[in-house]
Amino acid sequence: MRPSSSPFSRALFEAMLDVERALTTANAVMGLVPTSAAARINAVCEVERYDVDAIWQQAESSGNPVVPLVEAISAEAGPWVHFGATSQDVLDTAMMLTVKRAVTAMPLAGVLDACAGLVREHRSTVMAARTLGQQAVPTTFGLLAATWLNGLVGRLDIVGVLQFGGAAGTLAASDRRGLAVADHLGRLLELEVPALPWHTDRAPIRAVANELASTVVACGKIALDVTLLAQTEVGEVSEGTGGSSSAMPHKQNPIGSVLIGAAARRVPGLLGPFYAPHELHRATGAWHAEWEPLRELVELTHVTLERTERLLGNLQIHPERMLANLDPRVMAESVASRLAALLGRTEAHRIVVRASGGGDFRASLVADPDVRGVLSVEELDHALDPTSWLGSADELIERALAAYEEGRRHG
Amino acid sequence: MRPSSSPFSRALFEAMLDVERALTTANAVMGLVPTSAAARINAVCEVERYDVDAIWQQAESSGNPVVPLVEAISAEAGPWVHFGATSQDVLDTAMMLTVKRAVTAMPLAGVLDACAGLVREHRSTVMAARTLGQQAVPTTFGLLAATWLNGLVGRLDIVGVLQFGGAAGTLAASDRRGLAVADHLGRLLELEVPALPWHTDRAPIRAVANELASTVVACGKIALDVTLLAQTEVGEVSEGTGGSSSAMPHKQNPIGSVLIGAAARRVPGLLGPFYAPHELHRATGAWHAEWEPLRELVELTHVTLERTERLLGNLQIHPERMLANLDPRVMAESVASRLAALLGRTEAHRIVVRASGGGDFRASLVADPDVRGVLSVEELDHALDPTSWLGSADELIERALAAYEEGRRHG
Amino acid sequence: MRPSSSPFSRALFEAMLDVERALTTANAVMGLVPTSAAARINAVCEVERYDVDAIWQQAESSGNPVVPLVEAISAEAGPWVHFGATSQDVLDTAMMLTVKRAVTAMPLAGVLDACAGLVREHRSTVMAARTLGQQAVPTTFGLLAATWLNGLVGRLDIVGVLQFGGAAGTLAASDRRGLAVADHLGRLLELEVPALPWHTDRAPIRAVANELASTVVACGKIALDVTLLAQTEVGEVSEGTGGSSSAMPHKQNPIGSVLIGAAARRVPGLLGPFYAPHELHRATGAWHAEWEPLRELVELTHVTLERTERLLGNLQIHPERMLANLDPRVMAESVASRLAALLGRTEAHRIVVRASGGGDFRASLVADPDVRGVLSVEELDHALDPTSWLGSADELIERALAAYEEGRRHG
Amino acid sequence: MRPSSSPFSRALFEAMLDVERALTTANAVMGLVPTSAAARINAVCEVERYDVDAIWQQAESSGNPVVPLVEAISAEAGPWVHFGATSQDVLDTAMMLTVKRAVTAMPLAGVLDACAGLVREHRSTVMAARTLGQQAVPTTFGLLAATWLNGLVGRLDIVGVLQFGGAAGTLAASDRRGLAVADHLGRLLELEVPALPWHTDRAPIRAVANELASTVVACGKIALDVTLLAQTEVGEVSEGTGGSSSAMPHKQNPIGSVLIGAAARRVPGLLGPFYAPHELHRATGAWHAEWEPLRELVELTHVTLERTERLLGNLQIHPERMLANLDPRVMAESVASRLAALLGRTEAHRIVVRASGGGDFRASLVADPDVRGVLSVEELDHALDPTSWLGSADELIERALAAYEEGRRHG
Repeated sequence: MRPSSSPFSRALFEAMLDVERALTTANAVMGLVPTSAAARINAVCEVERYDVDAIWQQAESSGNPVVPLVEAISAEAGPWVHFGATSQDVLDTAMMLTVKRAVTAMPLAGVLDACAGLVREHRSTVMAARTLGQQAVPTTFGLLAATWLNGLVGRLDIVGVLQFGGAAGTLAASDRRGLAVADHLGRLLELEVPALPWHTDRAPIRAVANELASTVVACGKIALDVTLLAQTEVGEVSEGTGGSSSAMPHKQNPIGSVLIGAAARRVPGLLGPFYAPHELHRATGAWHAEWEPLRELVELTHVTLERTERLLGNLQIHPERMLANLDPRVMAESVASRLAALLGRTEAHRIVVRASGGGDFRASLVADPDVRGVLSVEELDHALDPTSWLGSADELIERALAAYEEGRRHG
Repeated sequence: MRPSSSPFSRALFEAMLDVERALTTANAVMGLVPTSAAARINAVCEVERYDVDAIWQQAESSGNPVVPLVEAISAEAGPWVHFGATSQDVLDTAMMLTVKRAVTAMPLAGVLDACAGLVREHRSTVMAARTLGQQAVPTTFGLLAATWLNGLVGRLDIVGVLQFGGAAGTLAASDRRGLAVADHLGRLLELEVPALPWHTDRAPIRAVANELASTVVACGKIALDVTLLAQTEVGEVSEGTGGSSSAMPHKQNPIGSVLIGAAARRVPGLLGPFYAPHELHRATGAWHAEWEPLRELVELTHVTLERTERLLGNLQIHPERMLANLDPRVMAESVASRLAALLGRTEAHRIVVRASGGGDFRASLVADPDVRGVLSVEELDHALDPTSWLGSADELIERALAAYEEGRRHG
Repeated sequence: MRPSSSPFSRALFEAMLDVERALTTANAVMGLVPTSAAARINAVCEVERYDVDAIWQQAESSGNPVVPLVEAISAEAGPWVHFGATSQDVLDTAMMLTVKRAVTAMPLAGVLDACAGLVREHRSTVMAARTLGQQAVPTTFGLLAATWLNGLVGRLDIVGVLQFGGAAGTLAASDRRGLAVADHLGRLLELEVPALPWHTDRAPIRAVANELASTVVACGKIALDVTLLAQTEVGEVSEGTGGSSSAMPHKQNPIGSVLIGAAARRVPGLLGPFYAPHELHRATGAWHAEWEPLRELVELTHVTLERTERLLGNLQIHPERMLANLDPRVMAESVASRLAALLGRTEAHRIVVRASGGGDFRASLVADPDVRGVLSVEELDHALDPTSWLGSADELIERALAAYEEGRRHG
Repeated sequence: MRPSSSPFSRALFEAMLDVERALTTANAVMGLVPTSAAARINAVCEVERYDVDAIWQQAESSGNPVVPLVEAISAEAGPWVHFGATSQDVLDTAMMLTVKRAVTAMPLAGVLDACAGLVREHRSTVMAARTLGQQAVPTTFGLLAATWLNGLVGRLDIVGVLQFGGAAGTLAASDRRGLAVADHLGRLLELEVPALPWHTDRAPIRAVANELASTVVACGKIALDVTLLAQTEVGEVSEGTGGSSSAMPHKQNPIGSVLIGAAARRVPGLLGPFYAPHELHRATGAWHAEWEPLRELVELTHVTLERTERLLGNLQIHPERMLANLDPRVMAESVASRLAALLGRTEAHRIVVRASGGGDFRASLVADPDVRGVLSVEELDHALDPTSWLGSADELIERALAAYEEGRRHG
């Protein structure tokens, strides 16, 4: 891990001190460490007492930051610190704590609230649904925003798992009291105690990385949709605060969504290292390869949620443009459905294909004797009205909002 | 999707027919499709009636195999097939069904049983734990196998989720009965019905891909350990049926674990496409990019579990070599711990460092007056006995076996 | 490697036979293998004599297909086959041969010709350049197609490199004549002879994988552009043979470009395994993990070029729509440039920003006294004419065509 | 791009100033910018004049750091800065410059020298070659180090390519003199001038990323070999300055190689974003997604080469242990070869298989009447002498050293 003055590195350092303090307390409770030694150690586990940068630097030669940290604590408070633990116990547990703490500071609730606001406001705002880049059938912007909301509800519910196995997973140094120490540690740090140490079974940290990754991807979907709807030729939404171009003052670049989208593109690469097998009792590199990607994922998730909150807060929706963009032929399914009830599906389909070929869709239908034989102009116009062909959009919105409300109550 | 005669492609084809059949049934129940038409359609949804290869070929020009399949069914049984659905509804749902069915045929239970057998048999087989490639402290082979077991218990518990949203997620064609159709479909196909269609929110299929990926990685850990323990200089395990080399008859290449390990290396690349944002109402490529990786992951998981079952079934464990390989200095922690209780941790550490420097570890300790001042040779030999320093290995094994037994009861 | 009836697997099998035959010939020339034995072996190195599927099946237990193949040849023609080689020599060399042969069958020339045709035909077809999804300045469709052309010119120029190192890279069995055998092999197989065997230095095969990957990505750029330009609201190009939708007959899904784009999304994951360090003298898994991704990359490149050739061959360009879509404000840079020469850059910029704010851009400028003080309406209209602001588009097109012609002469 | 105080960010900032300065100079030469304006701008293109952190911060709202930088320069020296360019021109070109400069500071030469030193010193140091983790035949440590050397010779020969296309690749603002400006810029910045701008054809930057990636992977191979050879049971090399463990003083963790190996594991994920198609005239996210991975690759390559130089400089080789570890059966190929000349290959193979089965290999051969019928004990012992079975190891070493010397002369 490269020495770093990033907030993550500092938070991780503090979490390592918290783990060493909790470990010493638990060891003292179990009679493995003298109470007086524990008191001395706990008194010095304060981040202000240490040269954080220097300790990160020393991590280069010791292979991880726990070794120099323990030396620094020992120098002040004697040799009982870190009793029974291996570096990986402390670093893995501190990683878990750091991520759990980091997510509480991320503005996920703000993003959800902003999404829910858009859903409610645009419940009836009709727009074209696009599939494969082509207008398909009508939908509402509210339902699109409900999809965004649904993709983020319940996210970042991180299960933090304790790591405690001693030098090689047997807890030998803890004199058969290791499992009790682990239980006590779990309570002190509010982390789940696993059946076995996970030194080389990385499912717990992989789940954390995944949760961060999935959150960025869900924001990436919002950003991608905004980018496409903000295209010059579509113009159905715009970022309130677009990036400007000095040479081209008319351009309102969708900078927020571009940067969110760029973050999403990094996710698969950052996630890869969490899917490596770790060998034997502690791994030679596969473990070390997780640190930077985890830091990146945490920072990327944080900045992405901030950008998404800002994006949604400033997003301008243009319902009139949505309506104007609607190709009347998105009502083909609707018209065919009405005709099918009267003429059969095959014949209905034939008629609609004919009318979709080009020219004015409504005019072609009005002029078609097969249509006019069964539908009046009023009936036809009803079949051509987008609001008549929204299916279950409203009930789906209701479901998304209900899940969001439920999440708020328990969040 | 490339035309393919692989078992997966055939299974997927059958699943697509099952989805179309269930859809027609559900539509008939809801009164959306005439009962007689439904009967006709259901009668022809039999894989034997179709030229599977030809339909896969046509997928090239239609973009997916559902379009030509529906045409083929329609040609035989009329236009009511596929009513209210979009291609993605059928293909996503069929993918879910196919994976759920595929995992039931995978030999996970056999792998778990083989692991559990090794755990029980080698509960007391002492070996060196290696961390960063170096012998650290003693452990048991049973505990290592328990880690393998624990990494696979509960795996492949796939939650299959229904996809049903119609042309663009509003279910417009289903005449406000779409959600009821979805509920009925879920019951018929035994799939979970989600709050919203997940056309462009890929969490459900991502979870499936992840479960497959994590299973391969867990097998990869077993294989990696076998590869390392089977090295000429270690020789603690060997594959019963090693690949031979004609020029070098002494070589017993650990082929099974090599191929399992190779599979694990492919996992990050195969998983990446499931972490892409999908745009608007149905995606332009991001969806299509999932098909081959999902097929690969299913096939890779299957062959990997087969190889792992064979590997574990034939694995030869060499306890005597494990004992012979043990560097006596792995007992340093044990000796230091005994001395610490008598001389303090600092002094104990100093003594053990001195004795570890080179030469015979036991002899150095026996000859050390500081040691002999507090420990008899008998006491020292106890501290040097690996079986005295196994910590909670046995309780951890107990936990892993308990979780395995629990899984067997509910599996 | 899974047994497979794919064309790649068959081609690889034939290439392995070619390598064994060439090796035997070279060995005979160097006096390492009896001439009569060589004749017998060469006579049986014919693909028709072997049960290809059976040999792929046996690869499962031997770890690679060379072992059972050599056994099968030996059974017919005695033990001198494969003399001095290791399996990896044969398989790596055969991979190189297979890729070299495969690319000659790929329609890259057809794609280049189609691109060049579009460049020439649309050299003067004005369209809006889009950056970050926003119309920026005018350009020509010919220049966009020139970018496509330039991205593919010179691609797939594969350097095939011989692998020959014997059991572990020393060529010990070849009795100090190994390097001479290698030189002879290189000549026979038309492959480059490297300084050292590359059993665990994968630069040569990585370069091959990269070339395939870059080709798919370059096609992916074409496809992505087509997808965006074919959107309902843009409509500047369309695939001649779009995928249709039964429920939505107006939809012309850009299926070709969607499938090409999906292929491009798989590239990073398929390339990953070629960036793994290989340990010691031959790797335990890292090598085996390359086979399937290489096969996938070859097949993906082939099908992608076929799809791209078809896409470009049928692509319909709509110049009138390109012109109609042009937002007049894409001429802002042009107008500002003319004004800057008369009023200074700061003042010019201020004026253009004001006129870009909304309403009719030309009308605002015409009505602006600051503009009219220095420019006549004719001069202004010239500054607003897109064809006056194409910069070096034509010279850039010239360069791209020149490189293409150069490539044709040497290709 | 996140604001950052990393050396890379600062170097990139300086490079952006260099590009703006060169651009202004070239524009002045071509008569596109007044000479006096150019002089003013060039005078203020000094890093000390700008609040680097503040400008990185503003990149968040403008989408890239060039926009606020140009504003800051304009504020001091008027509006002619950045004439004819787009942000991507400046940032891409500055990236190229930054990487070219960064690699000159990387200790590749030191790593090569250290490798070459090991090759020369251990040209005759016999060790077992391992394939698939099993001892195969004898080789020399010198040849292994030659493979390391060969993997790094010629690396980091970065071709820096200019980016200059204006707002959307037509160079419209440069009044038909854009290509001449580009040529001049190329000369000033010592960068290659491409046929076309590569705004959305990322081959040039992909090649750079690849070169960095391949360098890290080549170091990763060295590290992986060290890790394996340093295992307790192998002990053939050790890192001079191993990471120690307080609880286990005997452990000498190979920290340097572990950290290098961890870096190599990150390479595929960091490289992925360079294999994305970029759409139309400048991309919406795909470009932005390259920045952080490029920074990471540069920093990772730098720290990896530093660690590798340190690793090789301190590496301790244990030739006696290499000899002691040699399983006599690695001479099976040698013995079979001698016997084959006398008894035929089939019979020779049969004999050696029999002797390899277990027990003492030499003793079995000596006791075998079939062997003794054709070979004296002296002849047999010669066949069992590892130094007699090194093949072309020495010539291969010669080749690697020659390429290294050649590189030194031209480097």
